[in-house]
Amino acid sequence: MAEFRLHPRLAADTIFVEDWPLSRVLLLNDARYVWLALVPRRADAVELHDLTPADRADLMEEIARAGAGLKTLTGATKINTGALGNIVPQLHIHIVARKDGDPAWPGPVWGHSPAEPYTPSQREQQLGRLRGRL
Amino acid sequence: MAEFRLHPRLAADTIFVEDWPLSRVLLLNDARYVWLALVPRRADAVELHDLTPADRADLMEEIARAGAGLKTLTGATKINTGALGNIVPQLHIHIVARKDGDPAWPGPVWGHSPAEPYTPSQREQQLGRLRGRL
Repeated sequence: MAEFRLHPRLAADTIFVEDWPLSRVLLLNDARYVWLALVPRRADAVELHDLTPADRADLMEEIARAGAGLKTLTGATKINTGALGNIVPQLHIHIVARKDGDPAWPGPVWGHSPAEPYTPSQREQQLGRLRGRL
Repeated sequence: MAEFRLHPRLAADTIFVEDWPLSRVLLLNDARYVWLALVPRRADAVELHDLTPADRADLMEEIARAGAGLKTLTGATKINTGALGNIVPQLHIHIVARKDGDPAWPGPVWGHSPAEPYTPSQREQQLGRLRGRL
């Protein structure tokens, strides 16, 4: 079985938060949103239906955990969840805390506008807020 | 417990396909894509984490069923899956068969451009292709 390796584009666009039982939890490097990506640590998974039913069940619980956690931590108006993969094929699930009035509201964040990277201090603050609290 | 009723905006924008054990399966009335929405028949569900773990597990399997079915039926390049709900709060999961070169490719379909409704004959043809085959 091939070994899991994070796609280089995901590695470039995100910051490592922590590993959960199935998924690597990443923070998108865009200070305008609290925006996570869950990447199941399974080599060659592209579509949700590529996973085994057991992995899918675990993934759904990690998606719910991330969504509920972000909702509580951020007071988001709505959680947006998406698995697109048109550009980066490796299976990854976006979990985004959306707020009424954020730059893309009420449209999707995907493809809206270029990311605005965290400053080093913003990044440390955001990681401190998220790690171990989701 | 409140009774499930389809949100009027979803009812207006879609065509009924069939009911699965948990979800109502709808076809978005946009002839440019094969685009489904799964609506768990649970009153007042807005976020995935509002569902019980058992319902979430069932929903994940229905999402995988829809995605694998669309992939086989359409030869899609990629399945896009999303739960947004910024405009229509009732929990609904989009499953879209994307093709390289479709009008929104590689961006998201959500918020891209106004739907182009099926003609009556296109609609019947699409429903015939989908019903009982997903």
